[in-house]
Amino acid sequence: MTDFAMIKEAQRRLEKHSNYTPLLNSPFLDKIAGKRIHLKAECLQKTGSFKFRGAWSFISNLTEEERKGGVIAFSSGNHAQGVSAAAKAFGSPCIIVMPKDAPEVKINNTRNYGAEVVLYDRNKEVREDIGLDIAKKKNLKLIHPYEESLVIAGQGTTGLEIAQQVQYKGITNADVLVCCGGGGLISGIALALSELNQNLKTRPVEPENFDDTKKSLEQGKIVTNKNVSGSICDAILTPQPGENTFKIIKKLCKAGLVVSEEQVLKAIALAFLHLKVILEPGGAVALAAALFLPQLIETEQVIVVGTGGNIDREIFRKALTFLDV
Amino acid sequence: MTDFAMIKEAQRRLEKHSNYTPLLNSPFLDKIAGKRIHLKAECLQKTGSFKFRGAWSFISNLTEEERKGGVIAFSSGNHAQGVSAAAKAFGSPCIIVMPKDAPEVKINNTRNYGAEVVLYDRNKEVREDIGLDIAKKKNLKLIHPYEESLVIAGQGTTGLEIAQQVQYKGITNADVLVCCGGGGLISGIALALSELNQNLKTRPVEPENFDDTKKSLEQGKIVTNKNVSGSICDAILTPQPGENTFKIIKKLCKAGLVVSEEQVLKAIALAFLHLKVILEPGGAVALAAALFLPQLIETEQVIVVGTGGNIDREIFRKALTFLDV
Repeated sequence: MTDFAMIKEAQRRLEKHSNYTPLLNSPFLDKIAGKRIHLKAECLQKTGSFKFRGAWSFISNLTEEERKGGVIAFSSGNHAQGVSAAAKAFGSPCIIVMPKDAPEVKINNTRNYGAEVVLYDRNKEVREDIGLDIAKKKNLKLIHPYEESLVIAGQGTTGLEIAQQVQYKGITNADVLVCCGGGGLISGIALALSELNQNLKTRPVEPENFDDTKKSLEQGKIVTNKNVSGSICDAILTPQPGENTFKIIKKLCKAGLVVSEEQVLKAIALAFLHLKVILEPGGAVALAAALFLPQLIETEQVIVVGTGGNIDREIFRKALTFLDV
Repeated sequence: MTDFAMIKEAQRRLEKHSNYTPLLNSPFLDKIAGKRIHLKAECLQKTGSFKFRGAWSFISNLTEEERKGGVIAFSSGNHAQGVSAAAKAFGSPCIIVMPKDAPEVKINNTRNYGAEVVLYDRNKEVREDIGLDIAKKKNLKLIHPYEESLVIAGQGTTGLEIAQQVQYKGITNADVLVCCGGGGLISGIALALSELNQNLKTRPVEPENFDDTKKSLEQGKIVTNKNVSGSICDAILTPQPGENTFKIIKKLCKAGLVVSEEQVLKAIALAFLHLKVILEPGGAVALAAALFLPQLIETEQVIVVGTGGNIDREIFRKALTFLDV
């Protein structure tokens, strides 16, 4: 089980290798929300998403021999790129199992970082089974995208930075909105903040029809989504929260929020216009919640994590059309 | 005349008000250039460009009475936004003289930060005359976009950050490419780096047909462009280097580089794809030079300043089409 000490350890291994991402804001976004919004721009992290942190945390902790043996991961694309890039830096062979409908940019980049990509059908096959099968046959270390404690510790380093940045800016009290798929990032951040600053409360944000974490929090037990595909938020379409992550989320997180696809696209457009960063749909849900659901947020200051920027041009162009009206 | 002490003073006044912008890179960009490229992402600066630094440096140094009297500036749009936002923070009345063909986003934002905007025709009128005239009539402090020593000092704080970031990353020797209009930013950065790290040499980058600084450096005296409009790089279309800035540039900068409009648009597209930041045309010329003119750069490591991100959607969409081929 991940604890605060593991997050601090992960930070020591990550230092000098990950980007310390900025906390950005714009008076124009604040005006829309009627609150002060701070975007933690993890889209500027290496490989374009926070996932690099967890991947590096895991691989940097392997023995020399384990690294030589190689690693495997299943991922819709951001964990894929994070693992592929970290594996390359350590000289580890790497196989990534990805859904064949993953964004082109994510599949291409994963290959370009040096991994072998195995594609599967999201509606017919179970990625865990494929991953475990190959891992066993080839004796590879499987890096679970959110249930692995070292991965959660790596993602939690985002929380260490947030706590430091919030202190520097003199923010005393804020909700911290984090998009939620399997829950690796939010549980890592929640662990870090619960230790460092009790006035920063994490809340999961999910797209419509994929609000398994919100429902699980409400019912106090793990609830599963009906659908497994059919949202533009490809990065966070897990069927349910992880067993390990939900234990942490249940203990430390406040109520979840749900945003529509249109709200997500508008948030992407507004991040372009006012923050000058690229967010992908899954990475924009927290910003969308802060902008369009301020009535559901009690604090005056809101931290939102912009988790990734690996978006296909077609969807980005669609988002920009919301500025034309 | 600006000196290193003034830059350090400006940094003290700016601290806690400006963003310390990250130095970003991508192995995919490095592969294109055959060099290690580091982008200083000043597009993530407040108001979307480095100009906030110089504006804050100037207004924060005024007396209380002068601030109450108000300020005026002429600008194609980034200095406009920087001055407008800084003036608002200090409660100063503010008038901005802008060309009527400036990007819509820049005119709108300048107004939204609270300034009164006076539009003029770039081909028929001289902005300096309009600005000086209003300044005299209304007794406003004129903030020259690049000849004012406190503005140069403010822009120079970018150089202080670059020197610190370069040291942290263990870079020992690099060319520092900076786009160049009137030369306020490059002269500030050159002053800072000449004091802190002699192995970081600044070089101006300009768009085709607006290479007045490159030619001025070659001829050892100020040379003027034939055209005053007709480039997408609106932010850096000054007719010639400033008198004050050229003294610094002549003493401290290496040879200039020139990029085409197509190279600029491609650089904008590649920054979207691999760095997840928005660059405007004028802000992308240094990146374009590093990517497409590596044979003209001697160092293995290249710092490029991505100076601004205030781009109209139409041009951004045009840039994205370069990814479609």
